[in-house]
Amino acid sequence: MPDIKILTEAELRDLVPLDSDAVDCVEQGFTTLAGGRVVMPPIMTLPVHDHNGEVCVKTAYVPGIESFAMKMSPGFFDNPKLGLPSTTGLMVVFSSRTGILEALLLDNGYLTDVRTAAAGAVAARHLAREDAAHVCIIGAGVQSKMQLKAMTLVRGIKSAVIWARDPAKAKAAAAGLREELGIDVTVSTDVAQAVASADIVVTTTPAAAPVVKAEWLHPGQLVIAMGSDQDHKCELEPACLTKANLYVPDSQAQCAVKGELRSAIESGLIPKGCSFTELGHVTAGKAVGRQSDNDLIVADLTGTGVQDTAIATLAGNRAEAAGAGSTFSS
Amino acid sequence: MPDIKILTEAELRDLVPLDSDAVDCVEQGFTTLAGGRVVMPPIMTLPVHDHNGEVCVKTAYVPGIESFAMKMSPGFFDNPKLGLPSTTGLMVVFSSRTGILEALLLDNGYLTDVRTAAAGAVAARHLAREDAAHVCIIGAGVQSKMQLKAMTLVRGIKSAVIWARDPAKAKAAAAGLREELGIDVTVSTDVAQAVASADIVVTTTPAAAPVVKAEWLHPGQLVIAMGSDQDHKCELEPACLTKANLYVPDSQAQCAVKGELRSAIESGLIPKGCSFTELGHVTAGKAVGRQSDNDLIVADLTGTGVQDTAIATLAGNRAEAAGAGSTFSS
Repeated sequence: MPDIKILTEAELRDLVPLDSDAVDCVEQGFTTLAGGRVVMPPIMTLPVHDHNGEVCVKTAYVPGIESFAMKMSPGFFDNPKLGLPSTTGLMVVFSSRTGILEALLLDNGYLTDVRTAAAGAVAARHLAREDAAHVCIIGAGVQSKMQLKAMTLVRGIKSAVIWARDPAKAKAAAAGLREELGIDVTVSTDVAQAVASADIVVTTTPAAAPVVKAEWLHPGQLVIAMGSDQDHKCELEPACLTKANLYVPDSQAQCAVKGELRSAIESGLIPKGCSFTELGHVTAGKAVGRQSDNDLIVADLTGTGVQDTAIATLAGNRAEAAGAGSTFSS
Repeated sequence: MPDIKILTEAELRDLVPLDSDAVDCVEQGFTTLAGGRVVMPPIMTLPVHDHNGEVCVKTAYVPGIESFAMKMSPGFFDNPKLGLPSTTGLMVVFSSRTGILEALLLDNGYLTDVRTAAAGAVAARHLAREDAAHVCIIGAGVQSKMQLKAMTLVRGIKSAVIWARDPAKAKAAAAGLREELGIDVTVSTDVAQAVASADIVVTTTPAAAPVVKAEWLHPGQLVIAMGSDQDHKCELEPACLTKANLYVPDSQAQCAVKGELRSAIESGLIPKGCSFTELGHVTAGKAVGRQSDNDLIVADLTGTGVQDTAIATLAGNRAEAAGAGSTFSS
């Protein structure tokens, strides 16, 4: 059997920072997805209620890419009490031609963080106003920081405001981001005002009830809801979706069961059979995204297997070029 | 992060032979499954039609077991033309308590072979006549050999007959088995006669159309159909299921979409909503298996995630005890 490449989290952090290449490769994934030949099965979920955990498996075969990834993402929400991170996991890479195991990306969830933030950048690149300069981030976890960095890769972001349930965490995140990005990052205790002030609003929470109300939104904004990826989560009041001029899911099939679209359908505001322009249709130029500076647009990002295959491929190519990683025979 | 244990195929072959412990651990898995607290999501399948391949993902959380496995099984059926095996894969083991990656079992499908054969032994132990002595094996692949060995672990098997589409392969398999097991193993070119002669018939093919006819079966036999694990496969004429006094699926939910039950339902012979005794109900003593020496029984084995978690746990325990494997930090 051929050798198996093993890459550690530290190696992957070196090889695959959140940069324009990461954004481009994830964008290319969405574009290919819109071509209709990607095979992306429904997410597999293993709930482990006994230990307040769950594991999701995502994958996609992308024609033209020599490998595909299967990504396992455990989320065990009592881990912080044990001094462990809630979300961990790995990606397993197989040859598209033979199914033979090629690589183990022991990233503890890092590549998921990158491809998730990169999807935010793709949404902003295609759906935000060209002159978007002020961002509101809801939440103070890893994605709150990475999403703000992602926005700076595609728009001339000058300032940001962070709101989180825990103001101390928001304060710490803001300080870190000021230092890292060199832009003005403040903390708000008034979520309505923070949302209303922004050109781009990114929600990054695991909320199970809406944190953003439709009445706070106004023409010209882009709202990127990337927190909901399970069938009990929800960050936006369903009326946000109907108030928007354009609603853009990453995958309509997934969003209908795991995204903001799910709660909008359940509330009765959006009929079940409705069809929407997906993000890949916009990146592929098959559909128009923003039509005017006054459009209010909502992007619903649940995270797709095609992003995992895309980022794993980037990681593999970079490791190859750098001669990084260990090889293992079995 | 804690260390990750990596075990190679060679190490796993040493640690986990097909023996009574393997059979017992898989039986315990089925028994636990019947307790109703196992979480076993539907199989995830990624079809890769461009390369005549597919990957299945199976998993199960078993309360009381400290770890659970996620098993990825690629099957790429043009691989033999490239000198590669059709089926490969690995198992990834996580802590049930934290979801943290614990072990990578780089078995290239070997543990699947063991747990699949072990399930055959469990079925024979509970459903075959006590005096079953003559086995008919249909097919000449890896499972044909392992299933016959499995039968010898639970019944006093004296002889066997092999039938396969390719008589040369059947001949080679028979020779190997005579040598390994020290019993009389012959080759038949008359499948009807071979099936009719046996106390236990095991079908181990990837057939998409029936290879066993109901008219060849008679009272007292046990038929174990373990080849069908996808929604296009089928080894038994549907009438075999209705001719039987007892039909026992490993998992009714899986068999209804991927086992012999699927084609029986599609043929209209078995109504869709019918409920059957599962193998775990029998091993748990919650249902009666064989009631008389004259019962004709059909067991339908599609392969379950609980078997994967069970065999991965056995492998982990044996590796721990033997100090086997490499450790890797990430």
